[in-house]
Amino acid sequence: MKPIDLVKSPGEWLQAGGPDSGVVISSRARLARNLAYYPFAPRLSMAERAEVHRKLRDIILSEGLATPEMYIELTDAGELERRLLVERHLISREHSDSDGRRGVAVGDGEVVSIMVNEEDHLRIQVMKSGMQLAKAWEIASGVDDVIEAHVEYAYDPDLGYLTACPTNVGTGLRVSVMVHLPALVLTGQVAKVFQAVTRINLAVRGLYGEGTDATGHFYQISNQSTLGKSEQQLIDTVESAIPQVVRFEQAARDSLVRKDRTRLEDRIWRAYGMLKHARMVSSEETLTLLSAVRMGLQLGLLPGPKLEIINQLILTTQPAHLQALQGRELSVPERDRIRGEHLRSIMNPN
Amino acid sequence: MKPIDLVKSPGEWLQAGGPDSGVVISSRARLARNLAYYPFAPRLSMAERAEVHRKLRDIILSEGLATPEMYIELTDAGELERRLLVERHLISREHSDSDGRRGVAVGDGEVVSIMVNEEDHLRIQVMKSGMQLAKAWEIASGVDDVIEAHVEYAYDPDLGYLTACPTNVGTGLRVSVMVHLPALVLTGQVAKVFQAVTRINLAVRGLYGEGTDATGHFYQISNQSTLGKSEQQLIDTVESAIPQVVRFEQAARDSLVRKDRTRLEDRIWRAYGMLKHARMVSSEETLTLLSAVRMGLQLGLLPGPKLEIINQLILTTQPAHLQALQGRELSVPERDRIRGEHLRSIMNPN
Repeated sequence: MKPIDLVKSPGEWLQAGGPDSGVVISSRARLARNLAYYPFAPRLSMAERAEVHRKLRDIILSEGLATPEMYIELTDAGELERRLLVERHLISREHSDSDGRRGVAVGDGEVVSIMVNEEDHLRIQVMKSGMQLAKAWEIASGVDDVIEAHVEYAYDPDLGYLTACPTNVGTGLRVSVMVHLPALVLTGQVAKVFQAVTRINLAVRGLYGEGTDATGHFYQISNQSTLGKSEQQLIDTVESAIPQVVRFEQAARDSLVRKDRTRLEDRIWRAYGMLKHARMVSSEETLTLLSAVRMGLQLGLLPGPKLEIINQLILTTQPAHLQALQGRELSVPERDRIRGEHLRSIMNPN
Repeated sequence: MKPIDLVKSPGEWLQAGGPDSGVVISSRARLARNLAYYPFAPRLSMAERAEVHRKLRDIILSEGLATPEMYIELTDAGELERRLLVERHLISREHSDSDGRRGVAVGDGEVVSIMVNEEDHLRIQVMKSGMQLAKAWEIASGVDDVIEAHVEYAYDPDLGYLTACPTNVGTGLRVSVMVHLPALVLTGQVAKVFQAVTRINLAVRGLYGEGTDATGHFYQISNQSTLGKSEQQLIDTVESAIPQVVRFEQAARDSLVRKDRTRLEDRIWRAYGMLKHARMVSSEETLTLLSAVRMGLQLGLLPGPKLEIINQLILTTQPAHLQALQGRELSVPERDRIRGEHLRSIMNPN
């Protein structure tokens, strides 16, 4: 499989099969690690950078963490391929756009991805569908052990794992969940919920991480810092907070159904009608429409499609995906048109 | 057939079968007549009013211009029934809401309707689908002859037929066509066309006559006054102007298709999707959506329904029609919901 072929099938984390998948789209665990005796990535010389890259890539491949085809050297990758990886949450925007030797290994089903020479020498990311933080952490930890058998990590007995950015020092672990909170937004309660979440030291971000907005009511909730707490404590904090967010969202959905069912149905069916019929749809409108349909499916107000189809459309209607599917560059108006075609083909399967 | 049963079938003028029916929905001829030796209707005593009413009703029924069931005494008719007649363009709002003995006779297929004791003692109206002014006038004139065989009309050798309002003196004839001009509105040319039409002494009004707006881009174009011209001259003026308006509208539609087909298709398909799926639709939005779909059908951009179905929906989605179909009074939110149901049932026939 080539990286560009990723567009043809969804990652495991979009299968909508995990626990609480009506609200929690996916869970992610990410470990930041650095090799001892080397400067952090931003301060590596070109030669050192290449050396770190080669060393880690060789370990990843020899341990079978990814096939050689799915170890992608970003220095050689085209712009479209890199954007595709960003849209699939396999690499960060920074990793896509930076310079010098760097890469990413993508494992089966895109559950595991390993970035080399991002902000840290090594970032191990695991994504699972639904509320599966503990499972994601377990897999990440396993990959970490496999790699650690070959290298010495930068580690301080008092501080823990050392990282390029102080916020990652300690466990180097960031856990996050992507949640879909349309009813909390519609009922004007989302700010209140986020305040509560922030008070227990969790951060809330938009769909593509820091600095992105929450179009379509999709949010990422993650721990803020990793110092002074064990991995289990970090996971416990998030794992105990999310079920409450899920309950709030479910209660808000129930209240919308109870208090103004027709207006809610109207909103949902109009979104459904637009996805089935519109000829030009922007990225932003697409997320808004998919958000409404996703909620409608969860509430049993729509006949279909399956939830995982909607999850996949969130991914495949993005610009790089549309261009990869078409096999060529598209202008913005062309993208809006092709996005409409793509949505219609999926939403009108006959 | 009872008046309330009118809701079950459309009038002939909605069949979308006449010439130029893509742009011209219907043609209407209306004759104003008054009996000699009586004051005009607004100045009749109650006794005279009843006498005029009885006299004209008896002629209409004895001549078989309407069945007894379809001669509706508006004094006795319920509010809903009267509103229904207004929505079907069979009586004016003023005729519905005024006092005293008055009525309307509705002929087969709603082609002929005869108002008694409206502003004039007698108003003979004929509606035909598409561009059929001459035919409408011919039918109206025939009805006029039948009635005139029984009564003496108020007539002045110099002025012609005398009427309550000076604008109708002369032939007493008003001819009008209902046109659908969405492309002229979309391309910003409609004001220019109306200026040209006004210059040859024609008037432009909204869907329900004077003082109503042109929601959904439906307009009525009619002659302004009837004095000093023969019937044929009046008809010729409108009959020669309308084909030009039709050509302008067709040219505007062609230009929209040529210059920005995708955007036009998007607008049309979105309207189609809303009509098929929305759960609450206001009167005004309905007309806007039906207007777009009507244009789409004319341009061959939509698979269906038939044009006459859309014409009928313009009628049957109005408040009194919805209430007559439901057999009960409906609040505004209920109407919006029932209107959505009605639209979906027609737009999703399977």
